[in-house]
Amino acid sequence: MLLGIDHVGIACTDIRHSIQRYEELFELELVKYEERPASGVLEAMLSAKDRSADGPGGLGSYVQLLQPTRDDTALARFLREFGEGLQHVGYAVPRIEPALARLAAHGVHVVADMPTHGIFGSSIAFLERSSTGGVLTELVEVGTSR
Amino acid sequence: MLLGIDHVGIACTDIRHSIQRYEELFELELVKYEERPASGVLEAMLSAKDRSADGPGGLGSYVQLLQPTRDDTALARFLREFGEGLQHVGYAVPRIEPALARLAAHGVHVVADMPTHGIFGSSIAFLERSSTGGVLTELVEVGTSR
Repeated sequence: MLLGIDHVGIACTDIRHSIQRYEELFELELVKYEERPASGVLEAMLSAKDRSADGPGGLGSYVQLLQPTRDDTALARFLREFGEGLQHVGYAVPRIEPALARLAAHGVHVVADMPTHGIFGSSIAFLERSSTGGVLTELVEVGTSR
Repeated sequence: MLLGIDHVGIACTDIRHSIQRYEELFELELVKYEERPASGVLEAMLSAKDRSADGPGGLGSYVQLLQPTRDDTALARFLREFGEGLQHVGYAVPRIEPALARLAAHGVHVVADMPTHGIFGSSIAFLERSSTGGVLTELVEVGTSR
């Protein structure tokens, strides 16, 4: 059902600083940066794969840095409650609709108004933390543009 | 410097239940389960890659479920403070010693007594959360046995 870990989502309060830090410490490459007004978020995707390093290829894996631009979002609430840190994990799936149908049959709740479009033209859906052992889990049907 | 995301570490209070849940919901395959008395932890590695699915190969990516067996561990403290959920992210590196040397030059603190041996014979080291924007970060020099 899953193709692997697509990304980890990290909540931060100063995304410019966090991008710089992740570039500097881990030599990550910023591949996309955008404001998503509908989601109330600034979002940066950094490739967690050093393309110059030896090692097998495969799916991209990304560090996603997220800074809220509004106070009424789940991300802003996360930061108020826990501070900066790991907020969610995103798994890649071949197709999101059958994956969600399968999960629904197991009683797994999906956050409303999903799937929606993520960065890179992907289709994404978040599963409620109560369904997955406290882990905010995102499914990503990987778009064709990455 | 990084080869990609190796795993996400998820803290749980009943690892048998969590293994069953992740197998059932996401069709993950349990590839290793062991008690690690020196670390005070029960640890399960589940492959997050459906080997029957279409898609490129590459590094393994794993869901690591962790249940503490002692109260005096960082994992046990995490559970008391935050409850079940996403505890850390592990990145694969080609070789851990030069990676740690590079991070030390940037003032990044490593949790004491590291690197040590992880599951599958890997060498691992944890970076303190204060160094990485609140994210408990593990580096994994992937062993030869997976």
